[in-house]
Amino acid sequence: MSETTLAILASSIGSQILVRLKGGRELRGKLKSYDQHLNIVLEDAEELKQNGEPKKHGLILIRGDSIVLISPVSK
Amino acid sequence: MSETTLAILASSIGSQILVRLKGGRELRGKLKSYDQHLNIVLEDAEELKQNGEPKKHGLILIRGDSIVLISPVSK
Amino acid sequence: MSETTLAILASSIGSQILVRLKGGRELRGKLKSYDQHLNIVLEDAEELKQNGEPKKHGLILIRGDSIVLISPVSK
Amino acid sequence: MSETTLAILASSIGSQILVRLKGGRELRGKLKSYDQHLNIVLEDAEELKQNGEPKKHGLILIRGDSIVLISPVSK
Amino acid sequence: MSETTLAILASSIGSQILVRLKGGRELRGKLKSYDQHLNIVLEDAEELKQNGEPKKHGLILIRGDSIVLISPVSK
Amino acid sequence: MSETTLAILASSIGSQILVRLKGGRELRGKLKSYDQHLNIVLEDAEELKQNGEPKKHGLILIRGDSIVLISPVSK
Amino acid sequence: MSETTLAILASSIGSQILVRLKGGRELRGKLKSYDQHLNIVLEDAEELKQNGEPKKHGLILIRGDSIVLISPVSK
Repeated sequence: MSETTLAILASSIGSQILVRLKGGRELRGKLKSYDQHLNIVLEDAEELKQNGEPKKHGLILIRGDSIVLISPVSK
Repeated sequence: MSETTLAILASSIGSQILVRLKGGRELRGKLKSYDQHLNIVLEDAEELKQNGEPKKHGLILIRGDSIVLISPVSK
Repeated sequence: MSETTLAILASSIGSQILVRLKGGRELRGKLKSYDQHLNIVLEDAEELKQNGEPKKHGLILIRGDSIVLISPVSK
Repeated sequence: MSETTLAILASSIGSQILVRLKGGRELRGKLKSYDQHLNIVLEDAEELKQNGEPKKHGLILIRGDSIVLISPVSK
Repeated sequence: MSETTLAILASSIGSQILVRLKGGRELRGKLKSYDQHLNIVLEDAEELKQNGEPKKHGLILIRGDSIVLISPVSK
Repeated sequence: MSETTLAILASSIGSQILVRLKGGRELRGKLKSYDQHLNIVLEDAEELKQNGEPKKHGLILIRGDSIVLISPVSK
Repeated sequence: MSETTLAILASSIGSQILVRLKGGRELRGKLKSYDQHLNIVLEDAEELKQNGEPKKHGLILIRGDSIVLISPVSK
């Protein structure tokens, strides 16, 4: 039996997730909220860089349309 | 429990936000209004440049479809 | 409280606006009309060129889907 | 007060218009019909070339989704 | 007065048409059917090549979403 | 009179078809099912390569949105 | 007679599938859930690399809009 695909997000509220955008950039942060369009709000978000330190963003709203995949960060 | 994703915008009206467009350009300005398509109106907007001074736009309407992410600018 | 995002267009009818298209081209002209898809009609429109004189178009209908941002031209 | 954006097409039926496509190609012809998706039918259409003679197409149906802008050709 | 844009297709059933795809490829064949999404079925279709012989496809269904323009082939 | 465009698929169930994807890749296989979004399921599918042997996939579900054209493989 | 296209997913719940994304990247994992937008949740997912070891993701939600094709991995 199939669970709903968004259950993975419901159970990740307050936890670290990784979000990959079209074009390949990746953001990581604590999932604060999401909606059915897969718009995502992250707290304490940071953008991962190929080389060097991640760039800190704080609070961030990502348009679902820009997202390729989302993955909970295992602790 | 999940808040609505647009709450981050509701609470940023009148404050500085950063908007990143598809292709990588970034604009910064005071959030004047938004709608459910994520169309955004900024006041005193400026476009950030890789090198040199930001370009001033004043009032600006950005199509939601062009937006990758939005972040309140921390003071 | 949030105004509607299209109010910026309603108050620009008859005034000069700048329209940036996907890909980076920019057009400038007097806003004659618009609709909820952000289709835009400009009068006395001209297309700005990196080098040299703008290209004159006269009346022009721009598909909303091609538009990245719109800004009233300050006088 | 705002006219409808498609009025520019209604008043161009039977007249020469210029249509610019995504990617930059341009077609010119006599506007025969259009619909609310901005699908356009041109008669005696020709495709403008950077160098040399335009390519003649005769009757042509252009998908609205491929169109960036439309401009009546001034006489 | 504006005819419907699809009338050009209705009157081309059984006749040769040219279909240009996004990216620039062109197909030619006898129009067998179409629908309101501009999905197109061609018989005896062939794909035109920059150099050399066209590639024969026989029957072919083209997704409307991939189509830029359609033109009846004049005899 | 126009047939429906999907009739070409209905009559190809159980037969070999060729599917061309956006970007130019081509897959070939036995059509098992399709839907109104032009999502396609192929059995004994293989991906055609410019050079060398086709890559075997077995059963495969192709998103309609990725498809440019579909053609029955003539025997 | 045509089965529904999503039946291939229904019968793959709990089994290994391969997912190819726009741009060509491929992920492999155990199908946990899917929905009618073709959003896909994989468990024990890994991203296949041209050279070297696959990158492990664990649980992953892939937006249907980013997917080109899905194929059950034959055992």
